[in-house]
Amino acid sequence: MIATLHLIPVRIGDSNMGFWMPEEALKQARKIEVYIAENAKAARSFLKDIGSEHQLGNITIYQLSNNTTKYQITEWLSCAKEGKDVGLISESGCPAIADPGSNVVLIAQSIGIKIKPWTGPSSIFLSLMASGLNGQNFTFRGYPPIKPYDLKKKIISWEKESKNTNQTQIMIETPYRNMRLFKSILDNLNQDTLLCVASSITSECEYIETLSILKWKSKKSDFMHKKPTIFLFLAKFIK
Amino acid sequence: MIATLHLIPVRIGDSNMGFWMPEEALKQARKIEVYIAENAKAARSFLKDIGSEHQLGNITIYQLSNNTTKYQITEWLSCAKEGKDVGLISESGCPAIADPGSNVVLIAQSIGIKIKPWTGPSSIFLSLMASGLNGQNFTFRGYPPIKPYDLKKKIISWEKESKNTNQTQIMIETPYRNMRLFKSILDNLNQDTLLCVASSITSECEYIETLSILKWKSKKSDFMHKKPTIFLFLAKFIK
Repeated sequence: MIATLHLIPVRIGDSNMGFWMPEEALKQARKIEVYIAENAKAARSFLKDIGSEHQLGNITIYQLSNNTTKYQITEWLSCAKEGKDVGLISESGCPAIADPGSNVVLIAQSIGIKIKPWTGPSSIFLSLMASGLNGQNFTFRGYPPIKPYDLKKKIISWEKESKNTNQTQIMIETPYRNMRLFKSILDNLNQDTLLCVASSITSECEYIETLSILKWKSKKSDFMHKKPTIFLFLAKFIK
Repeated sequence: MIATLHLIPVRIGDSNMGFWMPEEALKQARKIEVYIAENAKAARSFLKDIGSEHQLGNITIYQLSNNTTKYQITEWLSCAKEGKDVGLISESGCPAIADPGSNVVLIAQSIGIKIKPWTGPSSIFLSLMASGLNGQNFTFRGYPPIKPYDLKKKIISWEKESKNTNQTQIMIETPYRNMRLFKSILDNLNQDTLLCVASSITSECEYIETLSILKWKSKKSDFMHKKPTIFLFLAKFIK
C-alpha cells in the first residue's frame, strides 16, 4: 500500500500551538516516523513541541539542502512506496510555499504518492487577509533583487502591473534588509499607492498596517527592523 | 478602547473542525457578538457549528453584498470604535482572499481598528502546497474570462508569463464551468507544461494531481465536474 506525504505546518512566530495548529494536523504529525525538513535542528525542536509518539532517536529526519538531488529525494520517499507515511516540514510556516519543499512534493506527485496538505499559518496569506488589499488578484514575487538599481526597476515595474491589472504585489525580504527595501519602496512608488507592512505575524508583537506611501513617509517605522516582514502594495487601478 | 476586527476562517469542505480550525481561533469566534458575513445564512450555520457563547438571536450579522456602501461598512464597524470586537467571515475558507471581504478590512485599516488574521484553510494555498509547483513565485488570477476567445488569449498569455518568469499560475472557476476551463487549458497549453487540478480540498474525496498536459489528455478527468476546484500550472522555465 502506498502511503501519504503529509505537508505539516510549523510555527511562524512565538505563539502557542493552539493559535495556528488544527488538532487533527497535530495528531497526524505525532504519528509520523520519517520527516523531510528544511532544517534538521528546527525539525527536532518541532518534534519535541508536538510531543511525538516516537522517541526522537527513532525518528528519521532527512535534511533538504540546495545540493539535494532528485535521486536522493526519490530514495527518501521510497518508504512511502512501502506504506510508511512521510512528513514534510519547512523552517517556518507551511511547507512548499516560499521554500524549496515543492521539489519534494513534485517528485512525490510524479511517483504517485498521495499528498495531504494540512491547514497551517502562512505569513503570506495572513498578511494578505489583514492588508485589505485585493485578495482576488495577487502575486507573490518572493525576494526582490539586491542591487539598488535592479530593485528600483522591479518595484517600478510591479507598480505598473498593479495599476494596470488591480493586482496586489507581495514580497518578502531577509529581515536585516527590511529597512532598505522599505526605503526603496517609499522612494519609488506613487504617493497614493497603498502599502501594507506586516511584521512578526502570529507573535505577541504582530504589527500589520496599511497606509498610502505619502502617510508612511511621515511615520516612525523602525518596528520592522530585523523582524520577519511581508510587504504588500496595490496601486490605484486605472481601467 | 478600540476593539479588533477578527478575520475568522470557516470550513471549505465537509471535514470536521479539528482538521482546519486552531483551538484559539475557535475560542475567539465563540465570543464575538457582531459578525460581518458574505452570506448571513452560512454565518448562522457557522455560529451553530462552533457553539457560540451567545444565543443566535442576540448575535448581530451584517450581510455584505455588491451594493454595500463604504458608509454602511463604517457604520457596522462603529461598535469596534466603542470597544466591541467584530468578526469577518467569508462563505468558505479565509475571509478577504478571493472574496469581497477585503473592502471591510481596508476600511477598518483606514479608521485605525486593529486587524487580527486567524490561521485557517485556503483552497488556494493548500492546492499550491500540494501541487509541487513553484511556491516561491506565484500569481492568483481569480476567475478567467467566460468568452472562449478571451479565455484562450488569457491562458496563452499566462503560460508565456509562467515560462519567462518561472511563475505558477493559479485560477478558480465556478464549479459547473470546470470541464470547460479544463478543456481550454488542455487545448491551448504546451504539452510539457505541468498542470495541477485540486478538487474538493479538505473533503473526504479530496483529489490533487499534477501531470503534464500530455498526460492529462489521456486521463479520465470527470472527478472535477461540478466540484470546487483550483487549477494551477507551470510552464517549463526558459532562462
